[in-house]
Amino acid sequence: MQILDKIKDYERLGKPFFSFEYFPPKTETGLHNLYSRLDRMAGLEPCFIDITWGAGGSTSETTLTLSKDAQTYFGLDVMMHITCANLSETRLRSALDQARDCGIRNIMALRGDSPRSDRHAEPSFIETSIDLIKWIRKNYGQTFCIAVGGYPEGHPEAKSKDDCVAYLKKKVDAGADFVVTQLFYDVSEYDQFLKRCKKIGIHCPIIPGVMPIMSYERFLKFTEFTGIKVPEHIRQALEPIKTDDEEVRAFGVDLCVKMARELFELGAPGLHFYTLNLESSVTEVLENLDLLGDCRTRRPMPWRASTVANRKSEEVRPIFWSNRPKSYLARTLTWDDFPNGRWGDSFSPTFGSLNDYYIFRRTQDTAMRENRLKIWGQPKSASDLTEVFAKFCRGEIKWLPWCEMPIQIETGRIVSQLVSINLNGYLTINSQPQVNAAPSDAPDVGWGGAGGFVFQKAYVEFFTTKAKMLELMERAKKIPSITIHAINEKGESYSTTDDVSVNAVTWGVFPGREIIQPTVVDSKSFAIWKDEAFDLWLDEWRSLYSKNSESWNFISSVHDDYFLVNVVENDFVNGDIYRLFPCINS
Amino acid sequence: MQILDKIKDYERLGKPFFSFEYFPPKTETGLHNLYSRLDRMAGLEPCFIDITWGAGGSTSETTLTLSKDAQTYFGLDVMMHITCANLSETRLRSALDQARDCGIRNIMALRGDSPRSDRHAEPSFIETSIDLIKWIRKNYGQTFCIAVGGYPEGHPEAKSKDDCVAYLKKKVDAGADFVVTQLFYDVSEYDQFLKRCKKIGIHCPIIPGVMPIMSYERFLKFTEFTGIKVPEHIRQALEPIKTDDEEVRAFGVDLCVKMARELFELGAPGLHFYTLNLESSVTEVLENLDLLGDCRTRRPMPWRASTVANRKSEEVRPIFWSNRPKSYLARTLTWDDFPNGRWGDSFSPTFGSLNDYYIFRRTQDTAMRENRLKIWGQPKSASDLTEVFAKFCRGEIKWLPWCEMPIQIETGRIVSQLVSINLNGYLTINSQPQVNAAPSDAPDVGWGGAGGFVFQKAYVEFFTTKAKMLELMERAKKIPSITIHAINEKGESYSTTDDVSVNAVTWGVFPGREIIQPTVVDSKSFAIWKDEAFDLWLDEWRSLYSKNSESWNFISSVHDDYFLVNVVENDFVNGDIYRLFPCINS
Repeated sequence: MQILDKIKDYERLGKPFFSFEYFPPKTETGLHNLYSRLDRMAGLEPCFIDITWGAGGSTSETTLTLSKDAQTYFGLDVMMHITCANLSETRLRSALDQARDCGIRNIMALRGDSPRSDRHAEPSFIETSIDLIKWIRKNYGQTFCIAVGGYPEGHPEAKSKDDCVAYLKKKVDAGADFVVTQLFYDVSEYDQFLKRCKKIGIHCPIIPGVMPIMSYERFLKFTEFTGIKVPEHIRQALEPIKTDDEEVRAFGVDLCVKMARELFELGAPGLHFYTLNLESSVTEVLENLDLLGDCRTRRPMPWRASTVANRKSEEVRPIFWSNRPKSYLARTLTWDDFPNGRWGDSFSPTFGSLNDYYIFRRTQDTAMRENRLKIWGQPKSASDLTEVFAKFCRGEIKWLPWCEMPIQIETGRIVSQLVSINLNGYLTINSQPQVNAAPSDAPDVGWGGAGGFVFQKAYVEFFTTKAKMLELMERAKKIPSITIHAINEKGESYSTTDDVSVNAVTWGVFPGREIIQPTVVDSKSFAIWKDEAFDLWLDEWRSLYSKNSESWNFISSVHDDYFLVNVVENDFVNGDIYRLFPCINS
Repeated sequence: MQILDKIKDYERLGKPFFSFEYFPPKTETGLHNLYSRLDRMAGLEPCFIDITWGAGGSTSETTLTLSKDAQTYFGLDVMMHITCANLSETRLRSALDQARDCGIRNIMALRGDSPRSDRHAEPSFIETSIDLIKWIRKNYGQTFCIAVGGYPEGHPEAKSKDDCVAYLKKKVDAGADFVVTQLFYDVSEYDQFLKRCKKIGIHCPIIPGVMPIMSYERFLKFTEFTGIKVPEHIRQALEPIKTDDEEVRAFGVDLCVKMARELFELGAPGLHFYTLNLESSVTEVLENLDLLGDCRTRRPMPWRASTVANRKSEEVRPIFWSNRPKSYLARTLTWDDFPNGRWGDSFSPTFGSLNDYYIFRRTQDTAMRENRLKIWGQPKSASDLTEVFAKFCRGEIKWLPWCEMPIQIETGRIVSQLVSINLNGYLTINSQPQVNAAPSDAPDVGWGGAGGFVFQKAYVEFFTTKAKMLELMERAKKIPSITIHAINEKGESYSTTDDVSVNAVTWGVFPGREIIQPTVVDSKSFAIWKDEAFDLWLDEWRSLYSKNSESWNFISSVHDDYFLVNVVENDFVNGDIYRLFPCINS
């Protein structure tokens, strides 16, 4: 979606918006951390995020990848920066084509500074941001919403503030849609800037750029380097606390909140955060400004919807990928339309294979490998394994190969049962508690907004031995409301039923709506998911150990011999899925 | 579906089937009554029904109409009789073409007797049933399953029983698929007939035709006329009770049950009932034989599914036509496919108008007009009207122009509220009680088979004055879970919401299935339904009175001034739709 349209929507609602700016990290660990951060911060529902351009350098590729992934996988509207300095026509065109093709509709057009020395540097094809904007409009029409930078304190190269605003006017006249300002700490500068803009005839939104002070050292360095004015009251307030990092951070949050209120008073439509790829101060500012609403608890769907245009109608997903949503998005990227209302048969055969996008690439980064070794240990027996899985259920481990995210809040309802079955050899990788007509705004299991009711059939999915699986199949004969599907790596499968119908396991009933059934269990998708699930034993886990070591061999045998089992308790009113397990109900 | 395939299905299940034979009535009242009976008896789920051919006469047109309507509107598999006596090639071909085109796949091929005198009589194009079968096979291939008559006691024109069976063998060899026998009361005749057939090489199903004795006089006349043998023990049993109609009827039922058990012992795959267009004895026989199962309480969907091939996938209907299902079927006849899973937008604009099929034609029959006048009276004021509607809710009146069937069992849950609002000027024509997770085999509100749960949002639809409608709109502001749509004959409309989404008001959750939502409320269909609903005031009701009489004028004013209002209580857990009405909750 074009940001200008979103800004207008916020205006209509009388609600200030906010946006987050990130830069492309230079290391793989940095990139990995940023992906996790993006994923979490997407939950705060920013109006948009933007990724700065690694001017002329290798990180410009990272900018492209990050922008595309954020747009495709994180449900975010992305504004990609592009700077024309030292960029050839070919690379400019290629960057914009790629952005367009993956659904990005917003570009921040900047001149940029020539990199001091970079082997990627090319002769500039375009020299000024004005020409860049004109060229984009000429070559891409209205495909992109174009933002430009504004300088409340004047651009270092401008003769005067008036000159600087006059130049901004030319950028707007060339086709820019809105302005994001450079950082400032003196609110009166923004006030005067707005007035100058108005006087000269700039009427588009002018979003103030802000950055909560996070560390005294960095703040000092940064403001000195950029020449940004630091009001005397800020210097004085910082002086006595400058050695206490926590106090500086707290002051930075308070100052930013105070500034934000003044900016809104002056008519700022929202706040643009220079996040420096960090999240806690920004989140705190937004919390104190009361701008987060219930976004961290409210969910339109049980899974986060994508912003990609052709996914807008997507209403159903199989449960198997709930803990690997990005993998699901990647494997269904080529779909032309998405299940809307019901799952249906036609989709399942067309799952793509996982491609080599960054987010699915096994890390070679030493720090990350070591971190994994630390949390997953060196399992040499079934009981070593059960301990790892139980820890994950207790929240003591933050991820598993099958679970990109820590265990979800709603699992609180069933955590003791999960720990118990894990310790007894059912290695759970997915589950949901039973829910019968909970309010749709319930903080743990709610989704879809207030006023409705949500339901869930209890679900649990795990790896276990063939013997244990067969024992469950036998026990299930006495519990007709429970259905089980089990399959091993070779595709040998067992089921309590021949019926291959699709089973809706999460649904919601809302006023004036048809029933929404966003999560299903179906045997065809399960057969596809099992390949991915078994591969993860090897790719993510076994790869930590040296070949033919004890742990390497043990994980291999689990991969070869265990079954992946999914269990649904269809009686969401009176059922109890855990009575299936002999360790709980013997 | 071809009956032979259905018979095989029953065989596999080890379950005897039954079928009903009707004849085309000669009067309009008779026809009207037969339609109601067909509708009710369809609920007993016969394997098929058949309609006899009004040989060469005017009633052959009725045979065609009845057959087509039963196939299209009543969810029945129909076998149409055809007799070649005095039928031209043109008329034979036209009858079979029409049958084929409306989905009929079964023909009973008979020679028939030449009518004694009939202005429709034509020279026969085909002389024998053997030639008729050959001609049908030659001209229609395997389009039709073909049945023929068998004569356990020998055909009157046959020289011997052996000759008669030899002739039957020729009919089977010519292409007949199964045999329905002529009536008999001596079971040993059927036994011998089966043996003769087997000996000569007839291996297709041979269904015994039976008829419970319903009146002594008629039984005597009928058996004398046809020459059917009446075993001595039956004569003796009837003699002492012959003047007591009720005793004769009870004896007839018992005898038929006894005969049926003997026939099943001999290997009869099912029973073919010569119903004489009557229902009670036949129903009683089936009940005593325990062949009805739960068919009168079990419902695959809340509405009766049609047997028409392209409607097989139909899973959703708007609620408005629930009491006029045949009208709904007629208006959607031209649809190529049917909403499957969800209602969706695309269907509503294409509702056809009601055509002039018999079942929608206003009756000119005097007896029926008088019956209506008797039950609907001569309303001259609002209070006269409220009394009629309240009587319908109490079950004292069996139909209204908008309700083809008496009030449904499930309404028992809300009958006192309905009566109360009707007496207060809200003239209800449709409603359903609130249901929250009732077992899907609950006798009143269940559907879809056992093992699931069904839900309903409370619904009520009524005519009322503009003032009362506006008062409800005002009261609804305080009950956000209630949505109201109101519209008058001219299309002036009011709504509590601008949202035109489709509202699922009945849904079911079943093991291993997606959610099924068979009934919806949507504003587009409502706008189409309202034309039909307002027309019924004039066509069905006002037409009973002479022009400009007091009742004629009053009904006209109701048609012109009242609003049709639909109300949904979206909170199916804690809501109470009747709190909307000031007369109930003031």
